Amino acid sequence: MRLKSFRPERIITMLVDGKNYQSIWLDKIDRGKVMVIDQKRLPFFFEIKELCSVEDIYSAIKDMTLRGAPLIGAAGAYGIYLATLEMNSLTNIPDHLANASRYITSCRPTAVNLSWAVKYVMDKLKGNFASPSLSEIALDAANEVCETEKENCRRIGNYGINLIEDISKDKKGEPVNILTHCNAGWLACIDYGTALSPVYFAHDKGIPVHVWIDETRPLNQGARLTTWELGNHGVPYTLITDNTGGFLMQKGKVDIVLVGSDRTTRKGDSANKIGTYLKALAALDNKIPFYVALPSTSIDFSLSDGIREIPVEERAPDEVTSVNGLVNGEIGAVRICPEGADAANWGFDITPARLITGLITEKGICRAEEKDIRNMFSNKFK
Amino acid sequence: MRLKSFRPERIITMLVDGKNYQSIWLDKIDRGKVMVIDQKRLPFFFEIKELCSVEDIYSAIKDMTLRGAPLIGAAGAYGIYLATLEMNSLTNIPDHLANASRYITSCRPTAVNLSWAVKYVMDKLKGNFASPSLSEIALDAANEVCETEKENCRRIGNYGINLIEDISKDKKGEPVNILTHCNAGWLACIDYGTALSPVYFAHDKGIPVHVWIDETRPLNQGARLTTWELGNHGVPYTLITDNTGGFLMQKGKVDIVLVGSDRTTRKGDSANKIGTYLKALAALDNKIPFYVALPSTSIDFSLSDGIREIPVEERAPDEVTSVNGLVNGEIGAVRICPEGADAANWGFDITPARLITGLITEKGICRAEEKDIRNMFSNKFK
Repeated sequence: MRLKSFRPERIITMLVDGKNYQSIWLDKIDRGKVMVIDQKRLPFFFEIKELCSVEDIYSAIKDMTLRGAPLIGAAGAYGIYLATLEMNSLTNIPDHLANASRYITSCRPTAVNLSWAVKYVMDKLKGNFASPSLSEIALDAANEVCETEKENCRRIGNYGINLIEDISKDKKGEPVNILTHCNAGWLACIDYGTALSPVYFAHDKGIPVHVWIDETRPLNQGARLTTWELGNHGVPYTLITDNTGGFLMQKGKVDIVLVGSDRTTRKGDSANKIGTYLKALAALDNKIPFYVALPSTSIDFSLSDGIREIPVEERAPDEVTSVNGLVNGEIGAVRICPEGADAANWGFDITPARLITGLITEKGICRAEEKDIRNMFSNKFK
Repeated sequence: MRLKSFRPERIITMLVDGKNYQSIWLDKIDRGKVMVIDQKRLPFFFEIKELCSVEDIYSAIKDMTLRGAPLIGAAGAYGIYLATLEMNSLTNIPDHLANASRYITSCRPTAVNLSWAVKYVMDKLKGNFASPSLSEIALDAANEVCETEKENCRRIGNYGINLIEDISKDKKGEPVNILTHCNAGWLACIDYGTALSPVYFAHDKGIPVHVWIDETRPLNQGARLTTWELGNHGVPYTLITDNTGGFLMQKGKVDIVLVGSDRTTRKGDSANKIGTYLKALAALDNKIPFYVALPSTSIDFSLSDGIREIPVEERAPDEVTSVNGLVNGEIGAVRICPEGADAANWGFDITPARLITGLITEKGICRAEEKDIRNMFSNKFK
């Protein structure tokens, strides 16, 4: 089996202790190891985890070792590649890969990138099941998914910086105050991020920015990951509870809201981490621009009405009844309610298009309206 | 010094392990001890704390051993009583009490009940500084504050139950789904509660109810206290994160929102625990009734514009950067973000009157409009 070398492009922005990282990559020596930063351990411990099987990929997505719509897409793509390594002469190849594909796709239902990326790789394999280069084709396709998403995120930053720069002109040197929810940074993607990509670009260009970070209960991706990302990069930030954004907007302390998306319909309704909808309402009420940054791989052109049609994942209640964090130098959990308390845990809510000022995509910024989305992505409409 | 006996009225609703409690009372034997349930230890440990000095009262309010607008008012009133016990023959009585009054009132700025209750007791003392019955007068006044607030809360329940009953008529035996934020139950008051009083009355009348409880970061009064209260009373509930209410409303899973108030202006703008405003926006967006339940002691008739005029407390950032809960059988904290992360912690936001369907008061239910509030409380307008 011949494998093209996978050479991570040098990246200028994503720093951990001054060293460049992506959130996923193939091991340079052992081509059967997909490497990821273990996001469950951040920000307390920076650890790299090896994923060597379809089951490893499934578990890592399921238990949030890796998360974020573009990243789980990339992981799903590598999952199909790993599936091609799990075959022997007796394997029914089409069945084996179809099963792996279904299994990985079933892992988390809301982000459409996962099924998109798995389908992307599977489409490349069709007609090549008998090829001795099957694994190579799969790896090339998975690498293409990564490179596509990286380039998408870079372009999102390139377009989005203009919004921040425009606001900055009226701020007389004061920082532009950006509010974000959850983590839509490079950890959630392969590189750059979606909502945070314009922030990194602005900061690197010398535009003063300050980010209000929602902690994002129950799993605290804001408190754990976005703080860590921005802190490593030197971007000023302030952590707040999920309850605080409305107050800040009432007090004129937010200039723009930037969030990511797990799935956006062709009409612009956007599923994102639960609580996003509440910030969109507050932004509208206070006349603050609210932008959703996303690659077109997060757009589900087959759906129209987000609230009715986007499946929303329900997760285990213990993520609500307890909180993870650092205690005595180790990661541990505290229970925050009476023993046996009933709790419920949905992962996403839907921000209706009418609350969204615009979508920041790899093709540019457009209104969250079917006509504009259709104009921008005419090739994706059927 | 002769002291009238303080006989807690038998209460039918507020149960802890089947026994009736109020959230504050004077010790029956030692009249220098104000007894409170230590709300910092709930729901993990049920402990009674003795407050024996002005300093004890101040600290207990400051560190949230007791909280809730009506309750901190009652505690402040008892604080003045305790101040009268901290005098000797050399004390300059007017100075001593004025200082105690200022000190206690300064403790937390947002809830107007505190300054109202302290002033209520101080007004009774004026002209009686030389009286040998000074302490008795102070105690009578503090008891009156408690009895007034209890009766207010009972009446709020009596009026508010009608809203729940009306909704129930269309539910065909399914429970009325009520969403609440923070804790506006009997723990926050002396008895019954404000937002929860109608819930208790409805439940006790056999109307099926189910309460969605926002956990209410940073101090988790919903997760710790409202769950505990409702659980003890047998009211069905489900704990959710603060991010979840909007999603539930989008999905038709909330019939009514009931919250308390720390300070409401004469035009109806209401300060309540931070995050309340976000739920009010979501309620309006989904055409769900949003009611603020409050005694008139929480109305500040001198204020008009809530966002501009109501002072909002800023608290220590470590309440945001860490979370308290039960770990290894003890109350402990986990840090949820990188060490040294910047964080900010405001306690309240303002729900503008335009988002409020109505106010549930001890005089009945009225619209959150100056004209209606003026009609209902004409004696309080100057």
